[in-house]
Amino acid sequence: MINIESKDNNLFKETKKLKERRNRTKEGKYIIEGFRLIQEAFKANMEIEYLIINEGCEEKLNEYLDRYIDTSNIYIIKNNLFAMLTSTETPQGAIAVVKDKKVQKNIKGEFFLLCDKVQDPGNLGTIIRTAHAAGVDGIILTKGTVDIYNDKVIRSTMGSLFYVPIIQDDENLSFIKKLKEEGFSLVATSLQESKDFFEADLKGKIILSVGNEGNGISEEVFSLADKKVKIPMPGGAESLNVAIATSIILFEKVRQNLSKV
Amino acid sequence: MINIESKDNNLFKETKKLKERRNRTKEGKYIIEGFRLIQEAFKANMEIEYLIINEGCEEKLNEYLDRYIDTSNIYIIKNNLFAMLTSTETPQGAIAVVKDKKVQKNIKGEFFLLCDKVQDPGNLGTIIRTAHAAGVDGIILTKGTVDIYNDKVIRSTMGSLFYVPIIQDDENLSFIKKLKEEGFSLVATSLQESKDFFEADLKGKIILSVGNEGNGISEEVFSLADKKVKIPMPGGAESLNVAIATSIILFEKVRQNLSKV
Repeated sequence: MINIESKDNNLFKETKKLKERRNRTKEGKYIIEGFRLIQEAFKANMEIEYLIINEGCEEKLNEYLDRYIDTSNIYIIKNNLFAMLTSTETPQGAIAVVKDKKVQKNIKGEFFLLCDKVQDPGNLGTIIRTAHAAGVDGIILTKGTVDIYNDKVIRSTMGSLFYVPIIQDDENLSFIKKLKEEGFSLVATSLQESKDFFEADLKGKIILSVGNEGNGISEEVFSLADKKVKIPMPGGAESLNVAIATSIILFEKVRQNLSKV
Repeated sequence: MINIESKDNNLFKETKKLKERRNRTKEGKYIIEGFRLIQEAFKANMEIEYLIINEGCEEKLNEYLDRYIDTSNIYIIKNNLFAMLTSTETPQGAIAVVKDKKVQKNIKGEFFLLCDKVQDPGNLGTIIRTAHAAGVDGIILTKGTVDIYNDKVIRSTMGSLFYVPIIQDDENLSFIKKLKEEGFSLVATSLQESKDFFEADLKGKIILSVGNEGNGISEEVFSLADKKVKIPMPGGAESLNVAIATSIILFEKVRQNLSKV
């Protein structure tokens, strides 16, 4: 274990840079916070470059990471410097720098979720966690969606980020178009439609989609949709939170898949 | 319109007290923040005692509340004092003090949601909003659930709080027991059960229930359950956020109600 005692330390400076999205994209790596999440990353066989531990928290290494750690990649850092690397108000004592897992665009599967310009990090994180539980084969993000390596997104995924393949589609929506050519049906939900979502047949190759918190699904995606439906709301509320709407549509697909009828 | 210029003002002091749960319970009133939410409260015919406006925001009164306001109940307050009454980091320029709507315990209906010791204000607020959309006849809260008049709960409900009857059950769960005597079936979800939630018949008189974020449904409630089920998770995630789990079970009831089969 090596000590970092100054903010002129190179590793400290490189790590701090990863707090900005453009540097995460350039370097292909990101920061995760907390012993529990780091443990999840090890379990998921993520490529972990190094750990930085807040001084005084070393004993937690054994508690959480005994099975995994290689002490040559562990740095101990002073309190005030550690605080400069974290983003939570009550830091968890450890961070790790993780390599971005490159997702193959020839990914196989029958069940995709498309998030079109979802903006709120907590919403996207919850969506990733829920999609993992629902067993999606991948999540497709359009340009303009919040960065998945934003610290709040990572926290809200509760580790699911390490398991679900996430595909960043390009401006032309090439990945979605390719799936459609392969026989996938794109289902778009909108408050403006009248057709009941629950009447849609979701068996087989499906892309379920949800849109931005304020504006819903963009016109570009909507124009590609094979089915346009609305989640029925028998009560008086005018809309649902996007993570809630996503969970309802994902688990209707789960229900139909399990159903013997 | 009356100006409040000192923190010795009685109305200011009374309002400030409402930031604490015990005072809200004692006085039977609570604070709501923001012009949009106040507009919702007026639309829902809530009993609004008075408005306090941050100086400089008076023109928004016309924009949002023109149809509703009675100028005798409006107070204008200095910035620094206004900040002492609000809880958001970016205050919305107005608060209102609203009377607690007493819910009759002889409430009618066939579709209830029970929240058993849900702790997180954002979760409870989102649950209330979702339950409103699903058209529940009421939400039952057990002792130990976060206060519905907590500012974060109110914000997350997006106004649904004003519409859905909320019943605070007592320690003996008398309200739930009464519903059961009337033929209601209590459905409890748990990660430990093996029976698939989607195979449960939810038509007719139903109480759907969800529990605490860490511990799930309490033993007392669980022992009253008529059906014990698990939401199937074909993916690898171990659990769902409680607001997400709630939305899945509520909208399965919606689906079954709409289904012709």
